[in-house]
Amino acid sequence: MNIFNLFGRRPSARVASDRLKLILAHERSGRGGSDLVLVLREEILAVIERHVAVERDKVQIRLERGFGVSTLGVDIELPVTVGGGLAAA
Amino acid sequence: MNIFNLFGRRPSARVASDRLKLILAHERSGRGGSDLVLVLREEILAVIERHVAVERDKVQIRLERGFGVSTLGVDIELPVTVGGGLAAA
Repeated sequence: MNIFNLFGRRPSARVASDRLKLILAHERSGRGGSDLVLVLREEILAVIERHVAVERDKVQIRLERGFGVSTLGVDIELPVTVGGGLAAA
Repeated sequence: MNIFNLFGRRPSARVASDRLKLILAHERSGRGGSDLVLVLREEILAVIERHVAVERDKVQIRLERGFGVSTLGVDIELPVTVGGGLAAA
């Protein structure tokens, strides 16, 4: 299961930064109802920001609304320290 | 972008419950480093549970570790009220 293809970018062999990709899809059985993915988006970003340094200009967000399905895609480039670990929040 | 295929299930036309699918993938540039997806998993589930009723036996979690990429898949069946809306937390 390689979701990076969903974002149209092949994972490069050696990248200077880590990447975190999130896809959240809500398949609704009925009409209407809140857009759960929008409700959850900010809180999930806040969870991620509690653990790693996130620069908001390195966050790409994409929302698709189909028939009965809303899909949120979040692509975050994470800064890596000289030692190779993730920069802490 | 239809991530339901990633879970091997076509979205049925009329389903009695909603479904929420989450895919979280961490592409690491260096060796080692914490398994970010595992660190985030419980906190993201807690965010979801703050907004909708989640029965833990209706939650399927799948973790895949490839070369430089860890991918977490979460598939949640959400109970729907008689009126068609999501059951609140």
